[in-house]
Amino acid sequence: MCDSLRVKDILEKSTYSPFYLTSKKQLTYNFDAYKEALKGLDSAFIGYAVKANHNLHIMRYLASLGSGAVLVSGNELKTALIAGFDPSKMVFNGNGKMLHELELAVQNNVLVNIDSEFDLEHIIQASKNTGVKARAMLRINPDVDPKVHAYVSTGMASSKFGINNALIGDYLKKIKDNSTNVELLGVHCHIGSTIKDVTIFRDAALKMVEFVDMIRGEGFDLQYLNIGGGLGIDYERNGEKIPTPKDLIDTVRDLIIKMKLKLIIEPGRSMVGNTTVFVNKVTGVKSNGTKNFVVVNGSMSELIRPSLYDTYQHIEVAEPCKGEVKTFDIVGPVCESADFLGKDRELPTPDEGMSLVVMDAGAYCQAMSSVYNLKLTCPEFWVDGDQLFQIRNDPDLDQYLSVYDM
Amino acid sequence: MCDSLRVKDILEKSTYSPFYLTSKKQLTYNFDAYKEALKGLDSAFIGYAVKANHNLHIMRYLASLGSGAVLVSGNELKTALIAGFDPSKMVFNGNGKMLHELELAVQNNVLVNIDSEFDLEHIIQASKNTGVKARAMLRINPDVDPKVHAYVSTGMASSKFGINNALIGDYLKKIKDNSTNVELLGVHCHIGSTIKDVTIFRDAALKMVEFVDMIRGEGFDLQYLNIGGGLGIDYERNGEKIPTPKDLIDTVRDLIIKMKLKLIIEPGRSMVGNTTVFVNKVTGVKSNGTKNFVVVNGSMSELIRPSLYDTYQHIEVAEPCKGEVKTFDIVGPVCESADFLGKDRELPTPDEGMSLVVMDAGAYCQAMSSVYNLKLTCPEFWVDGDQLFQIRNDPDLDQYLSVYDM
Repeated sequence: MCDSLRVKDILEKSTYSPFYLTSKKQLTYNFDAYKEALKGLDSAFIGYAVKANHNLHIMRYLASLGSGAVLVSGNELKTALIAGFDPSKMVFNGNGKMLHELELAVQNNVLVNIDSEFDLEHIIQASKNTGVKARAMLRINPDVDPKVHAYVSTGMASSKFGINNALIGDYLKKIKDNSTNVELLGVHCHIGSTIKDVTIFRDAALKMVEFVDMIRGEGFDLQYLNIGGGLGIDYERNGEKIPTPKDLIDTVRDLIIKMKLKLIIEPGRSMVGNTTVFVNKVTGVKSNGTKNFVVVNGSMSELIRPSLYDTYQHIEVAEPCKGEVKTFDIVGPVCESADFLGKDRELPTPDEGMSLVVMDAGAYCQAMSSVYNLKLTCPEFWVDGDQLFQIRNDPDLDQYLSVYDM
Repeated sequence: MCDSLRVKDILEKSTYSPFYLTSKKQLTYNFDAYKEALKGLDSAFIGYAVKANHNLHIMRYLASLGSGAVLVSGNELKTALIAGFDPSKMVFNGNGKMLHELELAVQNNVLVNIDSEFDLEHIIQASKNTGVKARAMLRINPDVDPKVHAYVSTGMASSKFGINNALIGDYLKKIKDNSTNVELLGVHCHIGSTIKDVTIFRDAALKMVEFVDMIRGEGFDLQYLNIGGGLGIDYERNGEKIPTPKDLIDTVRDLIIKMKLKLIIEPGRSMVGNTTVFVNKVTGVKSNGTKNFVVVNGSMSELIRPSLYDTYQHIEVAEPCKGEVKTFDIVGPVCESADFLGKDRELPTPDEGMSLVVMDAGAYCQAMSSVYNLKLTCPEFWVDGDQLFQIRNDPDLDQYLSVYDM
């Protein structure tokens, strides 16, 4: 079931599969949990990490609930403006922001994080080009190990992100020298994604507060502490106790109040991850003599996390199934061995045409979809109350091929 | 230089970067080498593996040269028909072919490879639904280890591809029982990609010839031997001796002639890989105190091979550069640590705005591009003689967002 609707019924009615299916109710619940957790923290805001899921309907809905947005490209920024996010609750992050993207951010009074010396130069240039003073924060690496996969660990000293802390004095001088063009309003750090131990969040905040003290001592009116790094979610679906937004925020509540800071958090995965399932239709079941395979119509083109990060997402047959329970690899039709959704899973042997879902597919799944094997990006639906709405159209090969002008 | 044109000039003129840049001359050269290698082998054909690069202009050009096409999805098949490939030189492969895709293949008299019991059922069904007899080959796993990355190794007994060889008798019986709907015309194997030791190609062919003998003994008029598995290319650009198409074909020439078979080969990477470079603009250079980074505007969204497969593609600054030589990671603007194009590369420190190219980016690069961070798929150009043509348009955010109907 997705809320009050049967996944199987939705699959049968859909003109295309696979597809993503989102529960608006779960999304609302997740947002409310963050909103509740921030209560009592003056002017704090939630910056939804759009890179986790850029569906325009989901973005628009979060904007309507009062969410801010954390953005990592000019296209994300443009899309956030279209979705109706309040620019005063937007942050533009990234190690490789281009000048034309920075101009768009500065023009819209979006907070921009200074990531490097060249980035600061570009921010100043963007201000000169647009005639608008840039509202900036400084991205500092607290060098706290989040103990997560190297690909989602971002706050270590060896990371591509953030300034070289040893040079912070040079940055402050440069900002002072360019005070017509750039105003330093906060500090930012990002400690990595999929975090399950919130004490590292406090560890990072403690280090950041030292920087805040130092920078304020230099005469800057710092207002914002922007801590990125998102909570993990229960991908294993084994009931593991995952910290709540309240657990997370409460680790830093006293610091924020004491320092009179405005907290900005950047949930992505924990906002949208568990709102969505990836619905596949079973094409067939095969064995090669040594291994059993459930072949479905979804693939690494729509959902690359298992092969890119070697991560686990729970998989279930989404309807009553009396087939013999066996150990299967769940694979797609894409022509390479990297194309799997799950390995060595105990499942009842499904019939052809049955629905099979990959759980917790709301974050970094559709957002990373590729055109490999010309699979094209699949549709999305959400359940709102007892109604189903299509929130991304079926793919259209003719439209795709129109980029070739022939 | 790309043939007679300067990469830097092309970058300066382009309205969008990064982009892919192809040499039509190199593509022609690669095709001709295969064509030459097949000389003397009656009715042999080249089945270009479209999954390597589905650019419609590249496909149309290869079709015009007489290439066939190997296809792995209904969309690839539709696109190959649009590109003008001769359906009698098309093969439809894959472990998860869907019924509507098989109907399209059967209707167009395209050879289809039987991958499993359910696949054979679907092929028979497709024939019944369309009233056209299916022209089929049987995909057999020769169980030869290609000694390549697990993700591009496809012919082992543990692979998701191909039939369980122990059951071959059942397959032949089923095909006989359905002789109105399916005609067995050949055998197929695929031993994996990036192969540098052609003796395994012969090893596979020897095993396949045993199967051919056995199947002919059962009264089938087998004509085709379809050996998939492509040659590696010199990604390291260190002058390594890579087998040529002739080296490859010559390992099996005597067998093919002796057995009176029509050879079908499936080059993808070795056809298009070295025809194309991925051209980036340098956004800036930074150091975090322990590591140096060249930040460019291309990313894992356009070129995921280095992070997905941990593979090497050679990187060069594509213009005169007098900067100090240092060891750099070459990274993009995408917000995660997986976003790199190369690690620990010795390069002269480039200036901002300089052109930096990733070599050998014609295969499995643009073909796997994603929408991550809303980077959208970048444009493509090719050099034809001394002329530059854009062969894929600049991305268009408005068009992308139109899938949301709002």
